[in-house]
Amino acid sequence: MRFFICCLLSAWAVLCAAQPLPSWNEGAAKSGIVEFVKAVTTKGGKDYVPPAERVATFDNDGTLWAEQPMYFQFIFMLDQVKAAAPRHPEWKDNAAFQALVKQDHEALAKLGQKPLLELMGQGNSGMTVGEYDKTIRDWLAKARHPKFKRPYTDLTYQPMKELLAYLRANGFKTYIVSGGSVEFMRPWAEKAYGIPPEQVIGSQQEVKLEMKDDKPVLTRGPNFVFIDDGPGKPVGIYRSIGRRPIAAFGNSDGDLQMLQVTAAGEGRRLALLVHHDDAEREFAYDRQSHIGRLDKAWDEAKAKNWIVVSMKSDWKKIFSFEK
Amino acid sequence: MRFFICCLLSAWAVLCAAQPLPSWNEGAAKSGIVEFVKAVTTKGGKDYVPPAERVATFDNDGTLWAEQPMYFQFIFMLDQVKAAAPRHPEWKDNAAFQALVKQDHEALAKLGQKPLLELMGQGNSGMTVGEYDKTIRDWLAKARHPKFKRPYTDLTYQPMKELLAYLRANGFKTYIVSGGSVEFMRPWAEKAYGIPPEQVIGSQQEVKLEMKDDKPVLTRGPNFVFIDDGPGKPVGIYRSIGRRPIAAFGNSDGDLQMLQVTAAGEGRRLALLVHHDDAEREFAYDRQSHIGRLDKAWDEAKAKNWIVVSMKSDWKKIFSFEK
Repeated sequence: MRFFICCLLSAWAVLCAAQPLPSWNEGAAKSGIVEFVKAVTTKGGKDYVPPAERVATFDNDGTLWAEQPMYFQFIFMLDQVKAAAPRHPEWKDNAAFQALVKQDHEALAKLGQKPLLELMGQGNSGMTVGEYDKTIRDWLAKARHPKFKRPYTDLTYQPMKELLAYLRANGFKTYIVSGGSVEFMRPWAEKAYGIPPEQVIGSQQEVKLEMKDDKPVLTRGPNFVFIDDGPGKPVGIYRSIGRRPIAAFGNSDGDLQMLQVTAAGEGRRLALLVHHDDAEREFAYDRQSHIGRLDKAWDEAKAKNWIVVSMKSDWKKIFSFEK
Repeated sequence: MRFFICCLLSAWAVLCAAQPLPSWNEGAAKSGIVEFVKAVTTKGGKDYVPPAERVATFDNDGTLWAEQPMYFQFIFMLDQVKAAAPRHPEWKDNAAFQALVKQDHEALAKLGQKPLLELMGQGNSGMTVGEYDKTIRDWLAKARHPKFKRPYTDLTYQPMKELLAYLRANGFKTYIVSGGSVEFMRPWAEKAYGIPPEQVIGSQQEVKLEMKDDKPVLTRGPNFVFIDDGPGKPVGIYRSIGRRPIAAFGNSDGDLQMLQVTAAGEGRRLALLVHHDDAEREFAYDRQSHIGRLDKAWDEAKAKNWIVVSMKSDWKKIFSFEK
């Protein structure tokens, strides 16, 4: 049986190598990716990288799935914070709470992630990690995106899922490195992206071990102990992986440092930005956006010849549910 | 070629399954391990666990390699702190520094890990992560253990290395979960144990991203942001793996909570303690030891029927260099 599976896997790998990235149009982005992968996997070539060092890191929001009109985790948070509000009368004077209740996206964006994450931390503080996991799964099962009227987990990008599979078929280990919480991604990342829980790196809320009914349980505290965004991303990668990625993928200024550190390594590297320029099939936003702003990273990409993917022209389809 | 390697791997897996754990004497410890592995890998059996959930976590100091007369990382630290002392005149009033210089092991043990880790943090603060890695590799290359007169990396336990390989051959993912720093283990854990850097969980010192000569580099700060010991171990596992282990291996009270959380999961579980009872071939210590004390965890093991390995009677050899 093991033998048979090996043969099947080999055949599948050959097939993948023959027709990579079917949802990508021919062009500089696709050929840049394919040339990079060929270069680092060709034994004896000057750019060859052993499989163990083929680390690829992907931002999640805006890179692997959509992030408009607001990070999906924040939409979840709104529901969760509303549910917790009766237990927190002190929130009436909290600017982030007020902005959330009013759905004032502009005010929320101006506040930045930190006060929102703090509010969310308080909203689920005291839950065991199992209880918290259940609130996320329950929410994902019933919540629908305001524009697409579909579960949020349908809004993953088909071309990026093909890219993840293509890299893995070529010996890469693929990681998510997101400003969002690990807990919000782990329940569905394996099914959606083929990325197991242990390869999801994200912001971290404090948890502590307690005994309940003579059993040890992990319980959530209110504070975030690590924010995995901007300059935090290379730190999260160093802590969790301990190797410098040779390929990194993002879409906003929050990914700039991850891409810079990746590109600054010795040998051939791939740095890629997804540009949201398709208002019809998804959303169009960049330098002026409050969510997923792409400004400094775009300038850097131009200066350093990183790949910039146009969702409009490089991708045949964005979501798998498109006809 | 890929096909050929698959066949070789299959043949090797069959061979491993036929003669597992050659350095282990027949007895309750070995049979307990083998029965557990058979139970969780037998498809259709009531205890079957899918490969993705076969997570096994190992303490390092005293479980995978020796830890006497003092944690090897602390011996490294002594050298490093001595080298940094001229830059830190304030240390003359520091109790941990005084104990280190005097090699007062009793005082060091009484102080506990925290002040020592703080001192070490100050000793390497300001280094880039690359510079720090080099100091560790250089030290490991030249330092020798006071009793065995060998490099510290020779003092890994042969039976435990066989156990790691046996578990991996049966679809387990093996992790180190240590109170020591990740940086001190990552340079050699893959060669010694077959455990890659991304599967090493340990205490974490702060690092921050800085620009030097127009290049982004990670630089070390003085503070530990996470101590992966005692109740910290289940927290480290939750953060880094996001799955509860089904098997956990330790040797001291610092591993108690990791073993408790592992054993408290649903389904068949394996919790194992290594008991240092061989003064001739290694060291003998338990309830009264300042380093690697085994007291509460031993009581728990007896109460809960965990496996307790006698190094003296369960292991044919301890180190690979023994005749």
